[in-house]
Amino acid sequence: MNQTHDPGRSSWVRSAQDHADFPIQNLPFGVFRRRGAESFRAVGVAIGDEILDIGAARAAGGLSGRAAVAAQACSTPTLNALMALGPQHWSALRSEVSALLASDSPAYRADRDIGQRILVPMSEADLFLPSQVGDYSDFYASVYHATNVGSMFRPENPLLPNYKWVPIGYHGRASSIVVSGTPVRRPCGQIKETDAASPVFRPTRSLDYEMELGCFVGTGNPLGEPVTIDQAEKHLFGLCLVNDWSARDIQSWEYQPLGPFLSKSFATTVSPWVVTMEALEPYRVPAFSRPPGDPAPLPYLDSPETRSRGGLDLTVEVYLATARMRTESIPPLRLSRGTAADLYWTLGQMFTHHASNGCNLRPGDLFATGTISGPAKHSRGCLLELTWRGSEPLALPTGETRKFLEDGDEVILRASCERQGAARIGFGECRGMVLPA
Amino acid sequence: MNQTHDPGRSSWVRSAQDHADFPIQNLPFGVFRRRGAESFRAVGVAIGDEILDIGAARAAGGLSGRAAVAAQACSTPTLNALMALGPQHWSALRSEVSALLASDSPAYRADRDIGQRILVPMSEADLFLPSQVGDYSDFYASVYHATNVGSMFRPENPLLPNYKWVPIGYHGRASSIVVSGTPVRRPCGQIKETDAASPVFRPTRSLDYEMELGCFVGTGNPLGEPVTIDQAEKHLFGLCLVNDWSARDIQSWEYQPLGPFLSKSFATTVSPWVVTMEALEPYRVPAFSRPPGDPAPLPYLDSPETRSRGGLDLTVEVYLATARMRTESIPPLRLSRGTAADLYWTLGQMFTHHASNGCNLRPGDLFATGTISGPAKHSRGCLLELTWRGSEPLALPTGETRKFLEDGDEVILRASCERQGAARIGFGECRGMVLPA
Repeated sequence: MNQTHDPGRSSWVRSAQDHADFPIQNLPFGVFRRRGAESFRAVGVAIGDEILDIGAARAAGGLSGRAAVAAQACSTPTLNALMALGPQHWSALRSEVSALLASDSPAYRADRDIGQRILVPMSEADLFLPSQVGDYSDFYASVYHATNVGSMFRPENPLLPNYKWVPIGYHGRASSIVVSGTPVRRPCGQIKETDAASPVFRPTRSLDYEMELGCFVGTGNPLGEPVTIDQAEKHLFGLCLVNDWSARDIQSWEYQPLGPFLSKSFATTVSPWVVTMEALEPYRVPAFSRPPGDPAPLPYLDSPETRSRGGLDLTVEVYLATARMRTESIPPLRLSRGTAADLYWTLGQMFTHHASNGCNLRPGDLFATGTISGPAKHSRGCLLELTWRGSEPLALPTGETRKFLEDGDEVILRASCERQGAARIGFGECRGMVLPA
Repeated sequence: MNQTHDPGRSSWVRSAQDHADFPIQNLPFGVFRRRGAESFRAVGVAIGDEILDIGAARAAGGLSGRAAVAAQACSTPTLNALMALGPQHWSALRSEVSALLASDSPAYRADRDIGQRILVPMSEADLFLPSQVGDYSDFYASVYHATNVGSMFRPENPLLPNYKWVPIGYHGRASSIVVSGTPVRRPCGQIKETDAASPVFRPTRSLDYEMELGCFVGTGNPLGEPVTIDQAEKHLFGLCLVNDWSARDIQSWEYQPLGPFLSKSFATTVSPWVVTMEALEPYRVPAFSRPPGDPAPLPYLDSPETRSRGGLDLTVEVYLATARMRTESIPPLRLSRGTAADLYWTLGQMFTHHASNGCNLRPGDLFATGTISGPAKHSRGCLLELTWRGSEPLALPTGETRKFLEDGDEVILRASCERQGAARIGFGECRGMVLPA
């Protein structure tokens, strides 16, 4: 931890003061474009209700050394080049951006109007995918989620024998990753009702969200060269929110024996702001405490650091707004609240496992945790679990009920970290509204 | 069919005459670089033992209209831009390249040395991946392969109930796709022996190849917009050979419930020359003849054209050369010989199914057929099937035996099309040698 985490540090950007998501201790990276004909996509850092334009900050002469090199890498319309540079450069840029935005910033003291040159109001900007994602992988790291889902699909055998040994994951679809705010069309697919003799092709009737965290790969590894657990975290740039939309009826018919395919590949929504691993330092906790009888991780997935600080004290929440709720001006309803500390596997374990066969991960690649669910009902991270496959519909304040998502429903994911002696930081929102098939 | 398919057409490029793979009727596209310091990657067309440099042909003034536009798209170091243009441009370029290389070419008559300006000997060139693959998907389209594998892993339930309805597929890893000739390192992974209490992390002992065809997407589809079966083939650019290397011991432990992951993602080898769908026209045959009792494809996967010419009469072969065979100058041994006509699903059905949920496929994306096996033992496209999971080792001419691949083994895939009234065309080779872990 360093000065950038100091909860006493404040910013001359007024809206950053006690901002729920983006105080000066956060400084997440994203890609934005100021609305208007002559603007280009650029890399920025969220600060309060504003975006620091990294290119403008560099032009203003506010960055030096490794921070200037990192800012130079931000002169492309994605974060890939910055992600490729590695932790020393990321940290240098964060340190100088924090100093530039701090209340005692010499640059600000010298020019009280500097904000007009280097800041863009979020309300005047569009946000884009943070990186060009070469490959997207999705894990299954919540033992509570795996157990719940398993008990619905395989009641006799809910948690498979490999679960506590292997960080289970699968390859996802990169092309259909969209940024928060992009509408999601209800997909069609082959669906076989339990009592039907044959499947039909029609729109899904069990459209679901999945509350996940996504991790952007920073520096990659060459093909054929695994990464030890000790080195894994140095390869991680930062986290975003991920809604891994799922069509449960398509999934249950297609998933054997090669796993989910079209039930997932129609859309995956990510939040636009990438909260760096460095910003998350104050919220590190021990890895998931395995209950007695569970095996220890195999040596390639184990390290003292993983055990002592592999976890994250990070609260995740899901909100729902139906069309009728919007019409009646009822605010979005919170459906669940969980924590990333409930994940059975750490991000470092996921990365090391992913690369353990020599598979190369590249800067800007994304891997997600899988649905984050906890032991309590209110911490279940998808409707499949919350409504127990539709058998326990949710009651909404409008009198509506939900087994799965209806057209016009908007799902909003949020996440935040709060800890004694540290600032509260958040991820902003990850939104998506369902369009009719 | 058109003049480019005329078996009577010959080329002034001498080595093209009766060339096993690349006569003038083939004209596959690839990316090459002439060896030497000052060369760049460029798009070329294989003709005999030579490569036609498309940029040089364009500079020589040999191309016009849509063909010139298509050649302009070849001025990048991948085929993605050409693939994005669509069938009219591909066809125009093929037509003019064929005319330029034909024995009666006016350009050649005007300048007998034109070859020195527009041809590069294959022996002086390195070959590269044909496209930047955004996403790689793999199907499971051989019912013989699915039945064989199923009966080993799930003897009570070999062919799952969805198989004859759903073109089963899964997302693969794009980052670890390599071009023919790239060595493949034996991967490590979690492996659990049948009688062991717990898994261990070690090099795979059941490294396998899979003989597949890969299909490069040409024009893509926007996210949310499916493609009807009638339109599907217009989106397909061409085919290559794919070796989908697999670690069977890692696979059997990790694959439930989300499918294969690290057992596949360490490497996928593709051949460098993309045989266009237009070149394959003479070898189209009816789709797989479903035995009585099998369901008809659902309407979204069915069309008269699919039924009458959805299949491909395309022979695929696998050869093995061990280190000892090379030392003893024994030529590679053919392990199997099958045909793409045995695939249960057509390429058009795979594409339409893939996009049926609105998933966007992009120019340069790759999807593969899955292992191509037929009903006869000699047509099984992987060692898992050929040795029946190692229980029937192969005897090699050196006296060696093989259950699975050993270090130093080189796997060579070949494929060709031959038909009455048409030229013989081939795919060249897809090679990969196994390096120690």
